Amino acid sequence: MQKIVNFIIELDKLKSVTRKTSLLNGERYENSAEHSWQIAMLASSLHQYATTPVDINRVIAMLLVHDIGEIDTGDTIVYQEEGLADRKLAEEQAVARIFGLLGSDEHKPHAEELMMLWLEFERCETAEARFAHAADRAMPVLLNLANKGQSWVENDIRYEQVIRKIKPPIHAGCPALWDYLEVELAAARGKGFFGT
Amino acid sequence: MQKIVNFIIELDKLKSVTRKTSLLNGERYENSAEHSWQIAMLASSLHQYATTPVDINRVIAMLLVHDIGEIDTGDTIVYQEEGLADRKLAEEQAVARIFGLLGSDEHKPHAEELMMLWLEFERCETAEARFAHAADRAMPVLLNLANKGQSWVENDIRYEQVIRKIKPPIHAGCPALWDYLEVELAAARGKGFFGT
Repeated sequence: MQKIVNFIIELDKLKSVTRKTSLLNGERYENSAEHSWQIAMLASSLHQYATTPVDINRVIAMLLVHDIGEIDTGDTIVYQEEGLADRKLAEEQAVARIFGLLGSDEHKPHAEELMMLWLEFERCETAEARFAHAADRAMPVLLNLANKGQSWVENDIRYEQVIRKIKPPIHAGCPALWDYLEVELAAARGKGFFGT
Repeated sequence: MQKIVNFIIELDKLKSVTRKTSLLNGERYENSAEHSWQIAMLASSLHQYATTPVDINRVIAMLLVHDIGEIDTGDTIVYQEEGLADRKLAEEQAVARIFGLLGSDEHKPHAEELMMLWLEFERCETAEARFAHAADRAMPVLLNLANKGQSWVENDIRYEQVIRKIKPPIHAGCPALWDYLEVELAAARGKGFFGT
């Protein structure tokens, strides 16, 4: 029991990993723990639109763990492509350390299950992982669309960069969501929601 | 699609519902969105200790939605018993409003499913709901034990109040967790982690 407690207490640190997207009321930047909750809710509400039928419980389990490595590495905006391979390696080492807090005895199967979920998300080869990626990529877009492009403007991200980065994963995992976003993004462009 | 988006955007407000428990690094009070994520992780790590076998996916789904009503009502510390019936009624009206954002057409089944999960948690009659309650009640206790009794000291909550309030739900849903906490709480009493 102490090992589970140590693991859950360590997870508290994800509440302090700051992302580039603000809360919609502007009071602060969101963190990766509450983001993980929100995308689990998004995926659960959207799953009938997945490209192929998905096990939504597995999608949710994946989304709840996919950012835990950021406890050691911090969050990086998706448009920062430099150093991506190094960051992914560091994140994998981080989750190995954190899931390892569950120990090598009775809770090892749970630690292994969490690592499998984390790897499945990263490899993005299953229908569940593709749909999970679509939800993860779409969430900051939805927040930006509701908030005058806040993180795109602040980080000087152009419309074309957004399209290039988010269309492939969202279209692959949830085409109906992409169709919706394509129209909204074009409208947002006319309103100055992007960097220049 | 627009109705799902409206619903998810409304959920952003849960990130601003402040609880009485601080982050362990002391930088601010935690909010109900990140709390919902953390208890989903706690439940998933603990479920082999449930009193009777539970469908952990249903437990997680319940925990992710159980605090959404606080968007309208705010969070109240569990030791504040006065006005409980009124608060619960207000929370039920709140979730009816918020899940209602999904509309009365194609997404109505999802809204109804979310309401069923919320009611199942509140009624606490199934094994899944009892285990979910144990996780929800235990989380602030674990954080307080790791943080010198922060919310108990700040709100002048005595050891006896804590035991009276948390033992029944935690013991009912997850007896092994209660056995662990009983020892830790007794030790914390000697260290002045409670109100007087």
